[in-house]
Amino acid sequence: MHALGSRAEGLGSDVRYIPGGEGQIALSIDVSVEGVHFRRDWLSPEEIGWRATASALSDLAAGGAACIGALVALTTPAREPEATFVALMRGVDAALESAGGVVLGGDLSRGDAMAVAVTVVGRGTGAISRRGARAGDGLWVTGELGGSRAALAAWIDGRTPDPAARERFARPVPRLIEGRWLADHGATAMIDLSDGLGADAGHLAAASELALHLELREVPVHPAARVAAEAGSQRPAIFAAWGGEDYELLAAMPPGFTGTTEFELTRIGEFAPGNGVTFTLDGRPVQPGGYDHFA
Amino acid sequence: MHALGSRAEGLGSDVRYIPGGEGQIALSIDVSVEGVHFRRDWLSPEEIGWRATASALSDLAAGGAACIGALVALTTPAREPEATFVALMRGVDAALESAGGVVLGGDLSRGDAMAVAVTVVGRGTGAISRRGARAGDGLWVTGELGGSRAALAAWIDGRTPDPAARERFARPVPRLIEGRWLADHGATAMIDLSDGLGADAGHLAAASELALHLELREVPVHPAARVAAEAGSQRPAIFAAWGGEDYELLAAMPPGFTGTTEFELTRIGEFAPGNGVTFTLDGRPVQPGGYDHFA
Repeated sequence: MHALGSRAEGLGSDVRYIPGGEGQIALSIDVSVEGVHFRRDWLSPEEIGWRATASALSDLAAGGAACIGALVALTTPAREPEATFVALMRGVDAALESAGGVVLGGDLSRGDAMAVAVTVVGRGTGAISRRGARAGDGLWVTGELGGSRAALAAWIDGRTPDPAARERFARPVPRLIEGRWLADHGATAMIDLSDGLGADAGHLAAASELALHLELREVPVHPAARVAAEAGSQRPAIFAAWGGEDYELLAAMPPGFTGTTEFELTRIGEFAPGNGVTFTLDGRPVQPGGYDHFA
Repeated sequence: MHALGSRAEGLGSDVRYIPGGEGQIALSIDVSVEGVHFRRDWLSPEEIGWRATASALSDLAAGGAACIGALVALTTPAREPEATFVALMRGVDAALESAGGVVLGGDLSRGDAMAVAVTVVGRGTGAISRRGARAGDGLWVTGELGGSRAALAAWIDGRTPDPAARERFARPVPRLIEGRWLADHGATAMIDLSDGLGADAGHLAAASELALHLELREVPVHPAARVAAEAGSQRPAIFAAWGGEDYELLAAMPPGFTGTTEFELTRIGEFAPGNGVTFTLDGRPVQPGGYDHFA
């Protein structure tokens, strides 16, 4: 079990214990499968491990929780050299370390395709979910969107992605610090951007039983997404809004919130009574256009 | 996410919260992969779900923990009808319900083979692991061994297993009540029998840095294992000791422990200073013979 990484404390015992404590324990599971969530010719084993873990940690971020660690079930083909899963676990380990966490447990199996199931464990107040936004709340987003889609678009076209775009796809950074900051500063609802702004804004509005209006002019667009969009004669904001897997956070903040933060945070919409999500770009209605991984 | 079972509370939110509380939170992950841990022609989808969950719950039992619930990542081939994963989750759900737990989260993906990763979450004192046995402690085992191996032997020979043996393989019962009872009555170390008595006794002795002697005459043999062994001219105790996946518990109990319980519990060996495991049958040395799933 040494292959589970240098930070894999306490393995070798079947069950791992963590102290209960006063708050709430946050839990989430995410599975990444070769050919569905990643391709071996796009990502190194280390990046596959990082990305699977970061994607799960992003759920903790959206819950306003701090990371304790993760349990990892790894399936690799029998023909695969041990070096592959050592590298993959190094990526898991690095993503956890960056979040202040450790490997809490693991299981290895052979299987036809490579797959990584990550259960993240954190600690929080339990007060934040995708439900809870109120009419009049602003919709805010961290970071810049569309970088991951720009990388994907390049690979699908058989081109080498822009390095900054590739980094967004291969090594997304879960917004754990930002998530806790937003939770501490009055966020009423939060979700992470895995399906893309267009889709995830809909999840937030539906869970909160409200209507939501987004003005796409305000969407912060990753520079590589701007280049990719313009190369394809698309509007950058639309390219970025219907991207996916940016792992930024989308938060509902009370009306008086000003957005003065030490990280990038942009107001892009507002909740209202009713239901459904509407989009405008420079005030003109835009039809939603979805995104479904690279299936 | 309704397919994750009627007891799948709180899904639809990305993170699930449980109260921290005074004790320790116990965590363990287990992955079951088609063709490695189960075969579709041997088990129904519901049994696959039960077995994957019970096998993970068995780790909680060996930690003396009570079950809170589990997070489940399920991979099924794209061609698979929805009914398959509904049935599989019914099995997960039933195993959790029998243990007093619920589904705490889930993720679904397509993939080439069916796979189920289960992270179990429980609560306990954190005092019990496979380390901690002392010289002079007795080695005790719950239930009867070899039933699962009897089923496997039949399938591999192309025969229909004895129904009681099949039940032991398809629907193992995690010994959660027994595990807590043993922990409360002085157990110094505990492990669940997944690799077979011969192998797991070695794990317990090695983790506790002690020698261990087992008298196989004392091993409680499942009736179907006795029949299967005798049909193959094997000694039933040897057949049962080198079976696997019985999911009974193996516990080190202090010298004065009498074994008066409301469940089946048998003294089969004793820890001593030193290292290594020795086996006798009616006092005569027996060479260990391993068991490696059905690979």
